[in-house]
Amino acid sequence: MSEPDLGQADSGAASDRAESNATTADERAADLTARIAELADQRLRALADLDNLRKRCAAQARIAEADAVARVATQWLPVVDNLERALAHAQADPGSIIAGVRAVRDQATGVLAQLGFARRDDLGATFDPARHEAVAARPDPAAPDGSVIEVVQPAYGDDERQLRPAQVVVAKAD
Amino acid sequence: MSEPDLGQADSGAASDRAESNATTADERAADLTARIAELADQRLRALADLDNLRKRCAAQARIAEADAVARVATQWLPVVDNLERALAHAQADPGSIIAGVRAVRDQATGVLAQLGFARRDDLGATFDPARHEAVAARPDPAAPDGSVIEVVQPAYGDDERQLRPAQVVVAKAD
Repeated sequence: MSEPDLGQADSGAASDRAESNATTADERAADLTARIAELADQRLRALADLDNLRKRCAAQARIAEADAVARVATQWLPVVDNLERALAHAQADPGSIIAGVRAVRDQATGVLAQLGFARRDDLGATFDPARHEAVAARPDPAAPDGSVIEVVQPAYGDDERQLRPAQVVVAKAD
Repeated sequence: MSEPDLGQADSGAASDRAESNATTADERAADLTARIAELADQRLRALADLDNLRKRCAAQARIAEADAVARVATQWLPVVDNLERALAHAQADPGSIIAGVRAVRDQATGVLAQLGFARRDDLGATFDPARHEAVAARPDPAAPDGSVIEVVQPAYGDDERQLRPAQVVVAKAD
């Protein structure tokens, strides 16, 4: 604490009280100044943390993305391996390949389902532009007008997260 | 600004000076107090920003991850579609399926390459435990000792980002 720098030539009650008040005021000012330095320091720290977090945040998103890509790619490796096996086996036993490929297809749709994108069965559903892409329309006496009578290419995923709409043929009035 | 609360009964130079000093000190204290309030406010804002950024950061990583999963899954849909087509076509022309499945296999390895995980050819490479998993060893007079003479299951990706090591057969001294 700095000593109060007041003239001491005059004395008396008023001077004494003034000196005492001034000392208190100086001490108070010193306390306040220290508090300011502390707060300014805390504020700078918070701003530095903010800047670091901002950089870390971008890096974390990139890492999460790269990890997700590698994880999903890895899930497809058994599908590729089994395609190889079906081909290798086909040399020895050509008749086996259809069953083998069918199994690989089921495995592939299983991977998609596991990723949250199950194959959707739209046959018989009412045409919905958000879920269906009409590639053709034709009369079908057995089906209600505007219903899906053939799925040319299936959709994967539910309405929340759909990888693509289904390509469908729609029943229309004759 | 609060008025200085000093006794005014005594007067004179000392008292006047004391009063003037006290007023200055009070003004200074008021300034400092205002500065403290300002800094405390700025610090609280920075902490609130930090908290918000932390939440936003976690949400962004989740979104980046989910987007990556959907993007990669979507890249596999043509592979699944072509498996379906190969199967459908096989009913009409059973001989066509091998060529069809071979094309799908190439397409699948193409997707992996596009994702940054090209199929690695390890035939003839020197055995490296970081890249290879030895499933067998056998004598091979035509190959150097410890070299890969057969790839049972290929590796995908480079050394930086490898999805899995290759399963290999290694040449060993007779």
